[in-house]
Amino acid sequence: MDIIYYPEKHKWPEIIKRPVINQDELYGCVQDILNDVKINGDKSLFKYSKKFDGIVPENFSVIKNDIINSEKHIEPKLKDAINIAKNNIEEFHKWQKEEPRITETQPGIKCWRKSIPIERVGLYIPGGSAPLFSTLLMLGIPAKLAGCRKIVVCTPPNADGKVEDIILYTAKVLGLDEIFCVGGAQAIGAMTFGTETIPAVDKIFGPGNQYVTAAKQLSTLEGVAIDMPAGPSEVMVIANDSAHPAFVASDLLSQAEHGPDSQVLLLTNSKSLLDAVIDEINRQLEILPRKDIAGKSLKSGKAILLDSISTAMDLVNLYAPEHLIIATENARELSDLVKSAGSVFIGNYSCESAGDYASGTNHTLPTNGFARSYSGVSLDSFFKKITFQEISDEGIQNLGPTIELLAEAESLQAHANAVKIRRTFLEEKMNNES
Amino acid sequence: MDIIYYPEKHKWPEIIKRPVINQDELYGCVQDILNDVKINGDKSLFKYSKKFDGIVPENFSVIKNDIINSEKHIEPKLKDAINIAKNNIEEFHKWQKEEPRITETQPGIKCWRKSIPIERVGLYIPGGSAPLFSTLLMLGIPAKLAGCRKIVVCTPPNADGKVEDIILYTAKVLGLDEIFCVGGAQAIGAMTFGTETIPAVDKIFGPGNQYVTAAKQLSTLEGVAIDMPAGPSEVMVIANDSAHPAFVASDLLSQAEHGPDSQVLLLTNSKSLLDAVIDEINRQLEILPRKDIAGKSLKSGKAILLDSISTAMDLVNLYAPEHLIIATENARELSDLVKSAGSVFIGNYSCESAGDYASGTNHTLPTNGFARSYSGVSLDSFFKKITFQEISDEGIQNLGPTIELLAEAESLQAHANAVKIRRTFLEEKMNNES
Repeated sequence: MDIIYYPEKHKWPEIIKRPVINQDELYGCVQDILNDVKINGDKSLFKYSKKFDGIVPENFSVIKNDIINSEKHIEPKLKDAINIAKNNIEEFHKWQKEEPRITETQPGIKCWRKSIPIERVGLYIPGGSAPLFSTLLMLGIPAKLAGCRKIVVCTPPNADGKVEDIILYTAKVLGLDEIFCVGGAQAIGAMTFGTETIPAVDKIFGPGNQYVTAAKQLSTLEGVAIDMPAGPSEVMVIANDSAHPAFVASDLLSQAEHGPDSQVLLLTNSKSLLDAVIDEINRQLEILPRKDIAGKSLKSGKAILLDSISTAMDLVNLYAPEHLIIATENARELSDLVKSAGSVFIGNYSCESAGDYASGTNHTLPTNGFARSYSGVSLDSFFKKITFQEISDEGIQNLGPTIELLAEAESLQAHANAVKIRRTFLEEKMNNES
Repeated sequence: MDIIYYPEKHKWPEIIKRPVINQDELYGCVQDILNDVKINGDKSLFKYSKKFDGIVPENFSVIKNDIINSEKHIEPKLKDAINIAKNNIEEFHKWQKEEPRITETQPGIKCWRKSIPIERVGLYIPGGSAPLFSTLLMLGIPAKLAGCRKIVVCTPPNADGKVEDIILYTAKVLGLDEIFCVGGAQAIGAMTFGTETIPAVDKIFGPGNQYVTAAKQLSTLEGVAIDMPAGPSEVMVIANDSAHPAFVASDLLSQAEHGPDSQVLLLTNSKSLLDAVIDEINRQLEILPRKDIAGKSLKSGKAILLDSISTAMDLVNLYAPEHLIIATENARELSDLVKSAGSVFIGNYSCESAGDYASGTNHTLPTNGFARSYSGVSLDSFFKKITFQEISDEGIQNLGPTIELLAEAESLQAHANAVKIRRTFLEEKMNNES
């Protein structure tokens, strides 16, 4: 790790800079894939699966029997663990639904909004070095809770050209049955435009490599919504002398093992803690199966010594980390100072792994500084909130003159007329009745 | 208007097709402007203001005195109307803030989420044929309610190279003082990258022409969030024999006067209502100041006769209109069938103008079919919802084995270790104590 002592404030932006990828080239190449999928459908999916995954599944569409039979290949203990995680995630997400609340802004003017599920959603579940069934839990559960009518899952083939059983089993537990064995930018293209096999959707969710992310961003230009632009995963840990160096090291390593481009940062006001954490990292790293990946990520990791924990909080809000762990004795109070972060873990026993898998919060979170403006995935992400209004004859009589004045001040006479014509009608009606 | 009788269902997608613009050319030209603003800052703003607006303001930044003095030029009655609209919009939006609710998903596992304002937001207020101060109300009020620290407003110059007094007065009423006299794609570029004069922001809001919209969409590739991609405004009216033809006509016209590309659609099950509405449109159109614009828009407008109102609801959900007016005697019940729309107006007295200005709901709404996946602007749009978790020693002991199993099933050993190391520590501590 790069150890930085008491950096001056004006150097902060340089220190926390995320790696920049050559976007022009990336977008150009991904746009070509999207265009190809748009025109050639399944045929182009075959082409790109062969090219990028080195294998083409027999069928893109996973057959029902394979989903049902997946259960046989999963250990009972793992099934129980999936069940516990599912229950916790459901418990946390189900409270996020806003019930309609009618506001009578003036007599006769009733306004409310209602959460209505997005009809067709697409969930991208990355494969690669490990089948991320936890991501399917994190996306599938809120999609089901929201009541989305069509839930499409795309995930790349494994070395045998199949979807891993653990992904299929998770899909089964969640009641999902439209699973497609295709990954990469071509999968995003398929869900954007639809192909002979894969249906088009209204919104695409899920993390992925830089090609998948670029494809998602470009798909928004085609009228599809996305959860958020996702980049390499990040953790920032704030710790002082009250923290356990071994715990802090284990948290930094659990982020580092994600990939060589994972972002790992430690902020502390204690030189002795910093030194102890570095020692612990070296010790724990040695015995990790993904030692090489974690080692690469740690090379660009940063341990920053600052004059105080309050200064560290300023740096947190400038960086806007995906995950923030606060390991100090006053962690709960400090958490009130967080302005930009994806998800916050408070105290010595709140490790990121808990939120990654099973505590209940969602692990699909904004990276790359997007925590400044984006929320992580939640039940909200699967709803549109539609506003409604019901105006009575009394209501339009009361508010009408105001609307007319405002519309006329914007030179929109027809807008004013729509009110005037109703008010005149009501006045005539009243005169006739009296 | 194009009158269509009982179209077969397979022809619906063709009938409701929105006009398509040549995106490649548009995005290319707008990308050039963004790149120029990124490199040359204010200098390029001067260049494009001169080129596109034909006038360059003395200063891009509006001075405080001009904001204060704007009050003198506004009629007292208009001031009152602005105040009433402001109160109603505040009343409707202030209830949209979710208070944190702690969920204990398992003993010792506390999770919650908190709404935290986006720090820096940019509001784009279109000028053009009329200064849209109502849009400033619709964006500025929730931005203030949310507590955004920096609220930047960009709006194009009028013929005198100035910001209209009514915009400045509205800003004053809302307590906004960072107003910049620059419009178009260059304004979006300025808020994306920052220039010598105009600060960069985290999220950009507001409608605009196709250049502004394209610039907003491209700015998302630069790490800025946007409210939504906005296109030409739309209204769909469902009416049966219980509707007043004059009211329906006035609503269609109020949409048509927005611009020649406004989308205007009437769905009905009554031939006589349809005929009466067409007659009324012709009558009312004659005396409109914006007759030419409305006339052009109506040319591509559609009046569709269907076998039933329930069929009409299916067509509504396929089209996903920005505004939906339901003028039937059972409008409230029908509104329960809405799956995709921006905002819904229920009954004969709920005209779109009410929601455009003063009833309380927001008028910044998804167009171009985006109502299938996007919500209109609300208080939510100015918040990030950050999740927090606090896990006790008891909590990690309970949930720990589950997390370890799941992490190991994803081959992420360091994730499992972060839990194991805490559990081992607690077990040793307990053994030492006993």
